[in-house]
Amino acid sequence: MRSDLDNLRVVLVATRNPLNIGAAARAMSNFGARHLRLVHPYEVAFREARSAVGAGELMASAKEYGTVAEAVADCGLVVGTTAAGRRELQHELRRLEQGGRTIRKQLGAGRVALLFGSEKVGLSNEDMSHCHWLMRIPTRAGHGSMNLGQAVAICLYELARSGKITTAKNGKAVATAADLERLTQVLFEALGVSGYVKPRVAAATEAKLRRMVRRMNLSDADAELWLGILRQIQWKLGTAESGAAPKKD
Amino acid sequence: MRSDLDNLRVVLVATRNPLNIGAAARAMSNFGARHLRLVHPYEVAFREARSAVGAGELMASAKEYGTVAEAVADCGLVVGTTAAGRRELQHELRRLEQGGRTIRKQLGAGRVALLFGSEKVGLSNEDMSHCHWLMRIPTRAGHGSMNLGQAVAICLYELARSGKITTAKNGKAVATAADLERLTQVLFEALGVSGYVKPRVAAATEAKLRRMVRRMNLSDADAELWLGILRQIQWKLGTAESGAAPKKD
Repeated sequence: MRSDLDNLRVVLVATRNPLNIGAAARAMSNFGARHLRLVHPYEVAFREARSAVGAGELMASAKEYGTVAEAVADCGLVVGTTAAGRRELQHELRRLEQGGRTIRKQLGAGRVALLFGSEKVGLSNEDMSHCHWLMRIPTRAGHGSMNLGQAVAICLYELARSGKITTAKNGKAVATAADLERLTQVLFEALGVSGYVKPRVAAATEAKLRRMVRRMNLSDADAELWLGILRQIQWKLGTAESGAAPKKD
Repeated sequence: MRSDLDNLRVVLVATRNPLNIGAAARAMSNFGARHLRLVHPYEVAFREARSAVGAGELMASAKEYGTVAEAVADCGLVVGTTAAGRRELQHELRRLEQGGRTIRKQLGAGRVALLFGSEKVGLSNEDMSHCHWLMRIPTRAGHGSMNLGQAVAICLYELARSGKITTAKNGKAVATAADLERLTQVLFEALGVSGYVKPRVAAATEAKLRRMVRRMNLSDADAELWLGILRQIQWKLGTAESGAAPKKD
């Protein structure tokens, strides 16, 4: 197998157990994925995993991030994994096999982040709001929650098994997560000024907007277009707010 | 998922690490396999795995055997797993996906044993001699050897995934053309007030916005959401323009 998964970023969020970080790294090595990112892992877990016997290169080059937004900033597709238990999801949910096909296609064109939440609670709603959609391993209803290392292994197997990741030719570049987050922030600010955002539920509104922006499937160019639109609106609202005369800035 | 894997017997041979026995049991529970058999496991490992937190029914009903022959005696098909490294194999070797299809077919007719060797050396030649054929998870050549718990999880996923699980249709209604046109108009008007639209190229800008809105692939609900957002902005811009005090409308 060639390193078809070179464009994949495996992102572990708030992982507690060093054995699970190590198990994820080992499965990555088995299937030729090389880029591991950790979002505020428990420090001890990260240190222990790094120094584990046989951890090797992959663990040594693992990168640590303070937030999900930073960890996925350079990725054009961000996918969260979930056991999809009782919690009501506000995202589109795809089965691994179906979602895997889309991810493989996207891997030919650019970077894809695949997120795994903590052992106890999985991904938070805030974490999920950075995702374009969610993916679920088809476990049985009675016992959906998987061991973290096993979940990573199964996802990578599904991505690697069919091999041929073809390079996309219909060259529409998708917006990166960083572009989308910038867009989200400008929209949120403009809506703050406009009175759309109620202070008491500001965080929920922000997450709602973040999800909505991800659902737009924006190209690079359209993200740019939207950013221009919203900045103009923001500027206009700002001058209205301050009562200042319009000016060049 | 119904218990499509009821006829499957997962057979761990000479397993050393109780954590791996536990991990295998957990993956079995995730995918609805219920019958675990252990061939001369290290006694301590077996005892510890049995008493592990959350081990549950499946571990409690696990059966211990002295030999592979006894453990697979009632099975019509016996398949060994291997990393297929340097060792010369005297068996037919199938990739997991291909072998999985055959196993699934056989599971409809009778019992199938799936063997996993010890962490260090895998299945011995003697163990393998009890197998009809061998199966390999398609790991990369440079690092073929998998963690035992992860290997079990991947095999079970492959056997379970095609099981007739009805896909949830995410019956999201798409926005109608009328919705999209309303959205386009409100956006165009808001941008007119904000100064984004240059009068000389207004028609071209309108068309550009119309195309952009269509590219968003909006659902019914998201079109509604956007409409609310833009109307609020439009209202705010309007009051700014006219200098009027905010009012209910």
